[in-house]
Amino acid sequence: MQDVYPNLAGCIDIKLINADSIVNESDVIFTALPHGVAEKYADECIKKGKKLIDMSADFRFDDDEATFTKWYKESWKYPAVHAESVYGLPEMNRKKIAKARIIGNPGCYVTSATLALLPAIENGLIKFDPIIIDSKSGVTGTGRNPSIKNQFCECGESISPYAVGAHRHQPEIERNLSIAAGERCGVVFTPHLIPMSRGIVSTIYAQLNDTICEAAGAEINSKIIQRLYSDFYSDEPFVRVLPSGMVPATKNVRYSNYCDISVHVVHDGKMLEVCSALDNMLKGAAGQAVQNMNIMFGYKEDMGIDMIPPAF
Amino acid sequence: MQDVYPNLAGCIDIKLINADSIVNESDVIFTALPHGVAEKYADECIKKGKKLIDMSADFRFDDDEATFTKWYKESWKYPAVHAESVYGLPEMNRKKIAKARIIGNPGCYVTSATLALLPAIENGLIKFDPIIIDSKSGVTGTGRNPSIKNQFCECGESISPYAVGAHRHQPEIERNLSIAAGERCGVVFTPHLIPMSRGIVSTIYAQLNDTICEAAGAEINSKIIQRLYSDFYSDEPFVRVLPSGMVPATKNVRYSNYCDISVHVVHDGKMLEVCSALDNMLKGAAGQAVQNMNIMFGYKEDMGIDMIPPAF
Amino acid sequence: MQDVYPNLAGCIDIKLINADSIVNESDVIFTALPHGVAEKYADECIKKGKKLIDMSADFRFDDDEATFTKWYKESWKYPAVHAESVYGLPEMNRKKIAKARIIGNPGCYVTSATLALLPAIENGLIKFDPIIIDSKSGVTGTGRNPSIKNQFCECGESISPYAVGAHRHQPEIERNLSIAAGERCGVVFTPHLIPMSRGIVSTIYAQLNDTICEAAGAEINSKIIQRLYSDFYSDEPFVRVLPSGMVPATKNVRYSNYCDISVHVVHDGKMLEVCSALDNMLKGAAGQAVQNMNIMFGYKEDMGIDMIPPAF
Amino acid sequence: MQDVYPNLAGCIDIKLINADSIVNESDVIFTALPHGVAEKYADECIKKGKKLIDMSADFRFDDDEATFTKWYKESWKYPAVHAESVYGLPEMNRKKIAKARIIGNPGCYVTSATLALLPAIENGLIKFDPIIIDSKSGVTGTGRNPSIKNQFCECGESISPYAVGAHRHQPEIERNLSIAAGERCGVVFTPHLIPMSRGIVSTIYAQLNDTICEAAGAEINSKIIQRLYSDFYSDEPFVRVLPSGMVPATKNVRYSNYCDISVHVVHDGKMLEVCSALDNMLKGAAGQAVQNMNIMFGYKEDMGIDMIPPAF
Repeated sequence: MQDVYPNLAGCIDIKLINADSIVNESDVIFTALPHGVAEKYADECIKKGKKLIDMSADFRFDDDEATFTKWYKESWKYPAVHAESVYGLPEMNRKKIAKARIIGNPGCYVTSATLALLPAIENGLIKFDPIIIDSKSGVTGTGRNPSIKNQFCECGESISPYAVGAHRHQPEIERNLSIAAGERCGVVFTPHLIPMSRGIVSTIYAQLNDTICEAAGAEINSKIIQRLYSDFYSDEPFVRVLPSGMVPATKNVRYSNYCDISVHVVHDGKMLEVCSALDNMLKGAAGQAVQNMNIMFGYKEDMGIDMIPPAF
Repeated sequence: MQDVYPNLAGCIDIKLINADSIVNESDVIFTALPHGVAEKYADECIKKGKKLIDMSADFRFDDDEATFTKWYKESWKYPAVHAESVYGLPEMNRKKIAKARIIGNPGCYVTSATLALLPAIENGLIKFDPIIIDSKSGVTGTGRNPSIKNQFCECGESISPYAVGAHRHQPEIERNLSIAAGERCGVVFTPHLIPMSRGIVSTIYAQLNDTICEAAGAEINSKIIQRLYSDFYSDEPFVRVLPSGMVPATKNVRYSNYCDISVHVVHDGKMLEVCSALDNMLKGAAGQAVQNMNIMFGYKEDMGIDMIPPAF
Repeated sequence: MQDVYPNLAGCIDIKLINADSIVNESDVIFTALPHGVAEKYADECIKKGKKLIDMSADFRFDDDEATFTKWYKESWKYPAVHAESVYGLPEMNRKKIAKARIIGNPGCYVTSATLALLPAIENGLIKFDPIIIDSKSGVTGTGRNPSIKNQFCECGESISPYAVGAHRHQPEIERNLSIAAGERCGVVFTPHLIPMSRGIVSTIYAQLNDTICEAAGAEINSKIIQRLYSDFYSDEPFVRVLPSGMVPATKNVRYSNYCDISVHVVHDGKMLEVCSALDNMLKGAAGQAVQNMNIMFGYKEDMGIDMIPPAF
Repeated sequence: MQDVYPNLAGCIDIKLINADSIVNESDVIFTALPHGVAEKYADECIKKGKKLIDMSADFRFDDDEATFTKWYKESWKYPAVHAESVYGLPEMNRKKIAKARIIGNPGCYVTSATLALLPAIENGLIKFDPIIIDSKSGVTGTGRNPSIKNQFCECGESISPYAVGAHRHQPEIERNLSIAAGERCGVVFTPHLIPMSRGIVSTIYAQLNDTICEAAGAEINSKIIQRLYSDFYSDEPFVRVLPSGMVPATKNVRYSNYCDISVHVVHDGKMLEVCSALDNMLKGAAGQAVQNMNIMFGYKEDMGIDMIPPAF
């Protein structure tokens, strides 16, 4: 372990277990494997009464194989495990997660966008199409395999969009929003690569519904919507709705499981702009997976993930 | 000079001239002063037959003092000089610039957004309201005065939006687009601070006009619009429309006067997405100022600014 | 608190107490004040039976006012408190710290250099003069006040030495080493500013004593010295002597209280080279202060500072 | 070309020529190939009356095949071409370079160390063994091939030494210094990887000769040595000896062919410390290669490489 991660020397003394026996020897399995590989472990977990939390996209689409296959070019070998899998976004599905055996842990961009939009969607504040999501991610988002894309001198001191109109997190965001809305939502999603290690900011633009705009002036709407967001997340341990006038920054959430959200009524009261920030490695991946485990096992929800962000 | 900028040791041997005599001793003056200060030099230049290129916002609004005053909290003392000033975006105003005596050099964000939208606006491709402009800038954009905002440990390894719905470049962008459109355009503009020194990427979203959407499929429209952009800028020395499938990155324009632009038809053919990248210190400021000077004096337009971007 | 440090929102709910009453209301005081200011609080602590851990240089020189005054241009107003202060490097002074009332917490560079040299000095491996210490620090080392020096665009993408031959940590290092050696040690110390937030690497060069060189070949000496270092720190919770062939990196200690050390016999067996890495904000400052508190109060030494470094 | 380097779009229109015909179609060849590959092109160049400037280590050791083979694990197939090759450091070998047909372009670290030490060595100021060279390099120094070592999240926000006591630039530095000294010099060289793209700082420590120390006080020696360095390089177009009290920073030389040098008498007048900074891609590689070409062809020495460093 120390050879690959010298930072862990003296901290952790875990034996790597062969994948064949890992289900037998564990109560819960976290799988971070290429798309399409976790299915068989999920099947084994169900048969043996174990639980599985998967970090790939395999279980992010419930029983909708068509969408999964369209975007990930894989088909399913164990359809039954998908049918009972639960999408692991606690703020949407906490009760289902508590009873689940198979969890599809959400994508990092997806978490940042969904949390930012849930209060607006569920309260019918905005038009459902088009919702513009402009996201910016640190380089850990590209994975650990070295490539020209994540080489220091290529991505340092530069920013660029990528996968314009074609990123695989777009259908997952649309799915979440459509479930929340009860009707189809249409999303334009553009990710950007930023010269920093960790963190995602999503800046989101949607038109306010005419009834909202007409009901009150821009300033009043701003206060109402600010309050609505604060109330929506008041019991959530990991979502912080910022006070009016503040904006999120990834430095305030890095190394923690928090997602910070700010809401703004702009364009003379006609549009809602929401900004969210999270750590793509924690609330966007491993932290959320542990949060799901805590819910599944009835532990305190922030057990092991109550880190205070160090800011710098 | 070497005390303030040790990099210039041995390169440059200029005496700093007292501001009082600078107009007399020069053919052209570049003013990079706080907003509201350049007016009197402009007045002096006109009286003495000299030319002035100003980097502040003072001359970016022609004779529209009301908009200037609303956003910059200054009023004008020399209205006459504004009446004859020309907005210094060569791709819009080259002929006027050639004859101008007073130039208002455009804002950095403004240049990146205007160049990205001019072909779409002038050809009536998109709906004029709302146009969403999500911009990301390096830290040189905050100026050289030290502050918590541009302290290394504060802005390094972090990204955040700022001035949401309230940045002073928004009215300047709206003005440019409205002039090009011949009618009022409405812009939602959000800048972000990125942990890099130089560069701006603007990612822009607008709905395609229904006539465009219906006229052809998404793929055909994509080719037509790509061609239209390429043709629009084919004679421009500093705008590079990227081949289909490529996206701009600030590393490809840093230390040069180029603005790179990519066009994308997204959302099932219903929306136009345009991405642009430039160096905020060059095409977004000093480089464009020199380009304006070259045009004003009939020099080769890329004289002194034909730098090849080093990429890393 | 949230206004200054938005990262702490929802995490910490501490009232700021007026400095006048802070000694009364506390068991232990941590002072992080400009040099020369903590004395009066130390005096008050002693009178009221409280303990104080000071992060400035005030108590780093025991009763040697002359050296302090030479380098910090301050004289003492409460000499008695200095006489009983203890230098807070646990690996040197654990027993004294346990009984101390006033702790002078070591400098960041000083900790990295002293820990790297203690085993060699105490075992008489090296010549005591000159010992070359070439250190590299992240930008948090400059403090939080904005200045040209720590502006992102000034210190980003650049490295430079500073305070060559004149840094105030040099006498503190010399003092530590001389105490360990039982005779005067002479140090050449050069710090460098590195474009990263946290972390210090010190690379240290000293000539091996002739008796060591002659006693065995370079390779054998290398193994002996490696073993000697490992044994020296085998019971220390926060010093990790790396296996032969590995080198420290700040990423492996960032956000933790660890100091990693590697030892190398170089120059055909004639010289010892030692490399150390620590987080200047933790083992180099606040983390070490908490370690001292734990020792003073008989707590588990890693209580509250057992963070696992996240590596990236 | 644009596919690999999009930054060059519209700037450069060169056809890639097959390596087989490149000697025929050129007057001078620049080879940047793996060690051991350039020999045959050198042989062909000599036969056809062309010139070659090689960026690998192949021609950095003149006719000393033993040293080359020891460090690079390659033997020579064309010994004759090595016998007539010239080491391409203009500040050492300008006259020989002017007549050379084959140039071995120096290593990046080597250039920074040799330029920093030449005046001291040639004037017999320092003891020749040990000379401590502590160097810090940006990530372009690792080459463009992606690896864990140069991955953004691995090397960003971190610093570490590498190849301690075993870097291949050490024998090349020793060779240069020994030639200048007329006797064997012994070097301890440690490189470090720094989270920035370009630039090297070398910090160098050597003991002043006793005769120097005794001849005058530390302060007088400091002035004498400062003057000596300034005079030594007064006619060099690319070496800038900084005024007393200043230190070099890579930001002041990046994107230029300059090497900045500062000299310091430290340790109570007993030691000389020299700091140098250059851009490893220019004076440390391609810029120096062009400088050599200019000398070989009798061009103005700064032709094509008179870039002014932009500082940020």
